[in-house]
Amino acid sequence: MYTLIIGNRTYSSWSLRGWLACKASGLEFETVVLPMDTPEWDAGSSKGELPSSKVPTLWHTDATGQRMAIWDSLAIIDWLADKVRTARISRGHYWPQDWAARALARSISAEMHAGFTALRQGCPMNLKFNFPDFAPSPEVLADVARIDALWNEARGKFHSIDEAHEGPFLFGTFSAADMMFAPVVTRIATYGLPVSDVSAAYVAEVLAHPWMQEWTAAAKAETFPFARYLIPGGVPA
Amino acid sequence: MYTLIIGNRTYSSWSLRGWLACKASGLEFETVVLPMDTPEWDAGSSKGELPSSKVPTLWHTDATGQRMAIWDSLAIIDWLADKVRTARISRGHYWPQDWAARALARSISAEMHAGFTALRQGCPMNLKFNFPDFAPSPEVLADVARIDALWNEARGKFHSIDEAHEGPFLFGTFSAADMMFAPVVTRIATYGLPVSDVSAAYVAEVLAHPWMQEWTAAAKAETFPFARYLIPGGVPA
Ligand SMILES: N[C@@H](CCC(=O)N[C@@H](CS)C(=O)NCC(=O)O)C(=O)O
Ligand SMILES: N[C@@H](CCC(=O)N[C@@H](CS)C(=O)NCC(=O)O)C(=O)O
Repeated sequence: MYTLIIGNRTYSSWSLRGWLACKASGLEFETVVLPMDTPEWDAGSSKGELPSSKVPTLWHTDATGQRMAIWDSLAIIDWLADKVRTARISRGHYWPQDWAARALARSISAEMHAGFTALRQGCPMNLKFNFPDFAPSPEVLADVARIDALWNEARGKFHSIDEAHEGPFLFGTFSAADMMFAPVVTRIATYGLPVSDVSAAYVAEVLAHPWMQEWTAAAKAETFPFARYLIPGGVPA
Repeated sequence: MYTLIIGNRTYSSWSLRGWLACKASGLEFETVVLPMDTPEWDAGSSKGELPSSKVPTLWHTDATGQRMAIWDSLAIIDWLADKVRTARISRGHYWPQDWAARALARSISAEMHAGFTALRQGCPMNLKFNFPDFAPSPEVLADVARIDALWNEARGKFHSIDEAHEGPFLFGTFSAADMMFAPVVTRIATYGLPVSDVSAAYVAEVLAHPWMQEWTAAAKAETFPFARYLIPGGVPA
């Protein structure tokens, strides 16, 4: 039995990554929303439901009744990737087979996990509003340029090296790298950030993916009273 | 053929993690040191040898002559773990077999990868000096307390659940989690940071590991003229 604890779908970019990882597993899982900046959040966090005090956190109860937590988006991706592969539970896809593609996929996913702080801080994920007049700082633009280059490299080299790589995502089939960059994709749309045509086409494909549509619809239906809703200059998305 | 590009062994904590990952693979690899904050660094970085402008970066040339880069410590760990497992090249060990142990190992390694910024900034790795009079900030102490708790959890639950887990490291056998925390281990010694007896014993075991001894000896032999050598209050290690 799997339970994924996430934050507000509107804002919680790391939660989105962990949720996409669960969707990709093909496993059944329950999703629990713990709204951030609320007493529920503090209660959940202090009760040990969030061992790192952060979302996403995935709880698994195994056949012997043992309960275990996996926290952090990248740890959830890789624990599930290992599990799905070993147990041959499903056709869940995480990392490209080809070694060169996998080298790039793992490298750019790790770079996302530890980096791009200017973009993360300057353009928080927000699925309820768009900011057409947003003026990105040079640091944000540098992060976007780097991401644009990485996406072009992946799409240029690896999207169709063989049948398994045929598809509109970074390495063809929707992979762990797309999970890691999905919140960046939303920010490019939300803040109108400049990218190349290759990346713009990729952004459109990710936004049209059924899992992204499902998450975004649930985000728009959220009604938590929450300070971050009140950003000036926003146009409802 | 594998070539690992690292920074100064004295200071480059992420390089140490990547190098331990290469050692664990059992593969032959060449190590190239690119001293940071020097013209060599800028040249190497600009020539594309460091795709993310950061060390560690691992270059692999495969049987067909294709050259590929894997950058970032955690990406190097996981790419090698996949490679060693798939190709059955060696008995290289990265992640614990047991699923609960693996959940904790992956979670704490990812937490290290993206977090503990107070400790990372306040106590940079330094293998040439000790700072016996160092006064840690509350933020550094909070990071150390969290790490101490994680180490106790791992050692308490998983160091001897079965033969594969027997050993003095976080999950018994030296694993990816030990690679990720190895630079923290050195900081506890260098800055005299307070930890529990369980963690102090673990620190001693890691420092005595032959790979750590090899790295530290090479660090002490480094002679790059480098501003960071000149920290006041240091006692040669
Ligand atoms: N490295 C973590 C980051 C998780 C994270 O920062 N989550 C945010 C929400 S998107 C959070 O829980 N923040 C609440 C807090 O820090 O109190 C991951 O990859 O999952
Ligand atoms: N997330 C990366 C961090 C790598 C990193 O920050 N490396 C440092 C040296 S320890 C570096 O290359 N700094 C040089 C620079 O940023 O110019 C990893 O896990 O490898």
